[in-house]
Amino acid sequence: MASAVETGKKLAAYQAVNDYITPEHKVVGIGSGSTVVYAVERILQRPELKNIVYVPTSFQSKLLIIEGGLTLGSVDQFPEIDVTIDGADEVDEQLNAIKGGGACQFQEKVVAEAAKKFVIIADYRKKSTKLGIEWTKGVPIEVVPMAYKGVMKSLETKLSLKPQKSTLRMAVNKAGPVVTDNGNFVIDAHFGAIEDPTSLLKEIKLLTGVYEVGLFCNMAEIAYFGEADGTVSTLKK
Amino acid sequence: MASAVETGKKLAAYQAVNDYITPEHKVVGIGSGSTVVYAVERILQRPELKNIVYVPTSFQSKLLIIEGGLTLGSVDQFPEIDVTIDGADEVDEQLNAIKGGGACQFQEKVVAEAAKKFVIIADYRKKSTKLGIEWTKGVPIEVVPMAYKGVMKSLETKLSLKPQKSTLRMAVNKAGPVVTDNGNFVIDAHFGAIEDPTSLLKEIKLLTGVYEVGLFCNMAEIAYFGEADGTVSTLKK
Repeated sequence: MASAVETGKKLAAYQAVNDYITPEHKVVGIGSGSTVVYAVERILQRPELKNIVYVPTSFQSKLLIIEGGLTLGSVDQFPEIDVTIDGADEVDEQLNAIKGGGACQFQEKVVAEAAKKFVIIADYRKKSTKLGIEWTKGVPIEVVPMAYKGVMKSLETKLSLKPQKSTLRMAVNKAGPVVTDNGNFVIDAHFGAIEDPTSLLKEIKLLTGVYEVGLFCNMAEIAYFGEADGTVSTLKK
Repeated sequence: MASAVETGKKLAAYQAVNDYITPEHKVVGIGSGSTVVYAVERILQRPELKNIVYVPTSFQSKLLIIEGGLTLGSVDQFPEIDVTIDGADEVDEQLNAIKGGGACQFQEKVVAEAAKKFVIIADYRKKSTKLGIEWTKGVPIEVVPMAYKGVMKSLETKLSLKPQKSTLRMAVNKAGPVVTDNGNFVIDAHFGAIEDPTSLLKEIKLLTGVYEVGLFCNMAEIAYFGEADGTVSTLKK
């Protein structure tokens, strides 16, 4: 029997695809992570969605698109996307999100920004009042390898909100740090509850060597949460 | 006979090395470009500077260090640099600079920020009242290839100061666009005279897909300019 979490992921993903992806769409962005697997599963159940071009946000989602037999596109080929569906690690009451647990936040942000509508899908554990409360693994910050020491220092000295700690994310099944699909490192910065994610995002992005920040502010139109009781709740602007 | 420009570059570089690099220094950052060649030439004339570790800002300056027989270091190995000496494409009266005509602005900024003192060397043509007046090739913006179309669009729609035009820098001796030492593209954005380079820098760096901006604001301690009459002038904070 599927766990409540897996059921939640699946229900949210299916509902979002049902509501937001239609055969009239030309280009759809496909996020990364375990919840997005269910979104692609649902797309494949609907043959009328096969004529759409799908733009991935990572190597993982590229494979999902290819292995599903869907048409693959890139964001420089299709800079205008109708809808992007993606997961999140945490979503607050204003629909701001922490993303990047899977280290794909850069491509995810590019594809989300290119979309007219950005839809988040997640299980109930990702719902939060403020970012940093439910997701305790920190804000993922993608950094250029040669600059990571400078960024580590700047995080300590240049931000209004000091991180409690910042760690270079280490790899499993690979010696040393995680390397992203873009060849970069990831620093996880722990701030506790984040009162003003938009300001924090700006301050971090301005640091030299920061490639992208896993804070998605004022981007999502709606979030679908698969609940533990088997229902789906939504949060909308 | 050397041209006034070449003489200017050499005089500025020699004077800066004489004034700012001492045998007490442990780590010195070496910028990129044609003027920096003279700085390394002067360093090699002074054997007492051979025990210093030199940190490059590009493949070009790495080769200068190696071929000069100097000790090569990296900025993650030596995150604290005593002095960095680098060229610039244009310097205004507040010591703000445009850099990146040689597409090395990212590593240059990392190494400049890591330094206690940042020293600019240039010939007289680079001296300006406001950025964008003397240097007419635009502000170099290093962008991640997959996001360059999004950045092009954002430059048109999201900045307080609209660029007159923005062009993807094309390569010579290579088909297609210039690729930087970091694997990225360069957009040259033409703004005309820039009244507030610090604000412009922030607005551009905040765009998703922007890796670094060739605006160096409030970083230099001093600039040396080799003048057409064979003298050297300085501009200091």
